[in-house]
Order: sequence, then C-alpha cells, then structure tokens
Amino acid sequence: MKPCKQLELYYHDLLHEGGNDIANATSAAATNATKLGNFKLGKLIIFDDPMTNDRNLRSPPVAKAQGFYFYTMKTDYIALFAYTLIFNSTDYRGTLNIMGADLMNAETRDFSVVGGTGDFFMARGIAAIITDYVLGLEYFRLKMNTKLYECY
Amino acid sequence: MKPCKQLELYYHDLLHEGGNDIANATSAAATNATKLGNFKLGKLIIFDDPMTNDRNLRSPPVAKAQGFYFYTMKTDYIALFAYTLIFNSTDYRGTLNIMGADLMNAETRDFSVVGGTGDFFMARGIAAIITDYVLGLEYFRLKMNTKLYECY
Amino acid sequence: MKPCKQLELYYHDLLHEGGNDIANATSAAATNATKLGNFKLGKLIIFDDPMTNDRNLRSPPVAKAQGFYFYTMKTDYIALFAYTLIFNSTDYRGTLNIMGADLMNAETRDFSVVGGTGDFFMARGIAAIITDYVLGLEYFRLKMNTKLYECY
Repeated sequence: MKPCKQLELYYHDLLHEGGNDIANATSAAATNATKLGNFKLGKLIIFDDPMTNDRNLRSPPVAKAQGFYFYTMKTDYIALFAYTLIFNSTDYRGTLNIMGADLMNAETRDFSVVGGTGDFFMARGIAAIITDYVLGLEYFRLKMNTKLYECY
Repeated sequence: MKPCKQLELYYHDLLHEGGNDIANATSAAATNATKLGNFKLGKLIIFDDPMTNDRNLRSPPVAKAQGFYFYTMKTDYIALFAYTLIFNSTDYRGTLNIMGADLMNAETRDFSVVGGTGDFFMARGIAAIITDYVLGLEYFRLKMNTKLYECY
Repeated sequence: MKPCKQLELYYHDLLHEGGNDIANATSAAATNATKLGNFKLGKLIIFDDPMTNDRNLRSPPVAKAQGFYFYTMKTDYIALFAYTLIFNSTDYRGTLNIMGADLMNAETRDFSVVGGTGDFFMARGIAAIITDYVLGLEYFRLKMNTKLYECY
C-alpha cells in the first residue's frame, strides 16, 4: 500500500537522569520505576525532543516531539509511547498524534498515527522507528519514518 | 469539509493545587514538575471535569471529561491531553476518546478525536479548544467545539 | 455492522499492591492517589498482563497487554486505559493500540482500538470489556472481545 504522505525525521533525546544538565536535557523522569522486574517497569519519562531532517542534533528542528514514554515490561525493555509531533515551519503547520509500543530490542518498531490536525487534518498512518544511535543513557537518536495512509 | 456531527460544550476545571478544597476541586496533580525549564514540564494533572452546554459551571453537566494533561515543554506552556468524554444523558450515551497537544498560548488548539463508542461508535474528528476564561490557578474554562467527520 | 476481524481473549491482572509478590505481580502503582474523593483518583497503575484464549491464568499467553490505567473519577470507580496488545505468535504478529474509559460498575464497557501494526496494519475497532472474575485486590480477569471494523 502506498502512503499519501511520507516524512523521514530524526528524533533526539537527552535524558536528564542520563547525565545531561538542566539546560541541555530534553527529557526527564516523572516517576520512579516500580519494584517489578529489572527493566524499569513503571518509570515514566516526559520529553520535549527536537525532530530534525538529518542526523545532526544541532540542525534546526522541523518539529518538536512532545509527550511521554512509560516502561511497561518486567522481562525486557518495552515502553509505551504517546506523543504529539508539533510542526510550525514554512513547510508544515499542525500536529500528528502518535501512540504505540517501542519493543526496544526489535530492529524496527511501528507506532500508530491516530490523528492529525492543521496540515495533517484527520491523518492516520504508521510511524516506523529505528534506533539510529545510542550513547549510554545520555543520548539516543531514532529515525522516525512516518507514512500516512489516510490524508484528507 | 462538513462535519457529520457537531457538539459545542464548555469544560470547567477547578485545580486542587489552585486553591480549591477537596470537595470542590475537579482536578489534582499526580506528579511534581521536573527541574527542566520553568513551565512545569513533567507535571501530570488528572481531571474529572464537568462539560456543560453553557458557560455556567453550575449548569447540569451533559458529559464528564475524564483523563489527564501532562506539561511537556521546557520553554512554553504546552500540555499533552488524553481523555474520554463520557456521555450519559437522554441526548447521548457513549464515549469519545481524545488526544492532542494544548499549545496554551495559541488562540485555538486542535485535538484529535481518535475513537468513540455507543452513540459515537467508531467516530473520528477534531476537538477545537478555545480558552474562554481563566481565574489564576483556581479555575479555567475551555470552549470545546467537537466536529466529527467520520460517523457510522 | 459486521466486524472484519474478531478476537475474544482474557486479560489477567495481579496487582503488586494487592498482595502479589514481585515475582508474581503483573502490575504496580506508579503514583499515589490524590486526596480527591474516595475512589483512588490520580492513582496510576502500570501493567504487563498476559492475554490468554481461555480463563486459565497459566495458559500460554497469545498476547501481552502493556500500558496503564489511571483512576479518573471522584465519585465512582472509573479508569482511563491506554495500552498496546502485543502479539508475537504463530497466529499473529503485530500490535493493537487501545484507549478508553473503564466504567467499572457497568456490565460492558467499550474501549476504542485506535490503530494497529503488523498483521493489524491500520486497524480500528472496539474492544468490549466484561469483568469475568475478581478476587479482592489480588486478581481480576477481564473478558476482552475485540472487534475490528476497519481492516486493510
């Protein structure tokens, strides 16, 4: 099936608990992990992450990804993501609302684009995630390939 | 594009931390803000808010809005909303499930109606939000204009 | 309206705070209840729950339900659910993303299936929930009848 719109962007995350200072960090924990298992189950991370066209963290962001992920598994690293991509550029204005499970050890993971507003009015689709780079707990970069299959 | 159904309702919020007592308050914080920025990033508010047909907080509610908002930005007031509108009246029975980013400083913000049940079976659409009134941290009222574009 | 796909599964939950030990528990609280009302408003439970074909908790899970529920009402037990069903079996691979209000005292409650991936690419539908069994705070079992009305 052919998408009606496609966006390939990079998501950059600098976790406060991963050693980034307050000025630099783009995400932080809102709750502590519970005692279940050894994979942070119950830890809730809130993020305000830049999305760029290329791999460079310092490139001008074309969108912000704002929302949370929540570790949800006792026996492996899986997190539930729920966030909005907020676009406010000459190319696009509007938002995409996204939800899905990040099976962190899988090569590609798919989230659901459950709705959109503005230039993405009523959109639906799939955001395919690939881990592009990880530096300990300090930084990770995801390649996020968003394919919309319902456009209005 | 013409909606297949439209609902114009008012959302009333009385925050416990804003000075409302336990009996009166309709929302409260479940987590504290993180240290990132000065815009409450990481603060999670849970609400059980009445929705009315007019601006009067004391009017009989036609629905309850139940869910949460989560401050998500370091440099401005933006919150991710996720909630259900629960209708249980002579007019409507059922729910609308809604998610989106509240860019609080924008005049109008659009959320995604991502699904519905009962009288709103499988609905999709847009809920347009306008801040109608604010009284410090104690009370705010939103005008929520919900337009459904997919009805079954 | 006839569903294009239907799945009848059982959801098993063993709450840590309900007396289950760390090894056994499949869910735990990430936040405490607020002071509003007497129905746990603000309490956020994160779960990693097995889904089985029959009522037996020890049957091989056909999916995991991972996500959270969040108590949202001052005057009754209602919780907002948001979770992913993760399938990884010979029958199905992929995920269903689900959100909705659990009006715990109603016989049947409907959640929205807001998206899917893999074998459930772009799916939408309704997950109808019935409480099948409750043992204090220690264990509850839900019958979850998922009907998809949009399949690709």
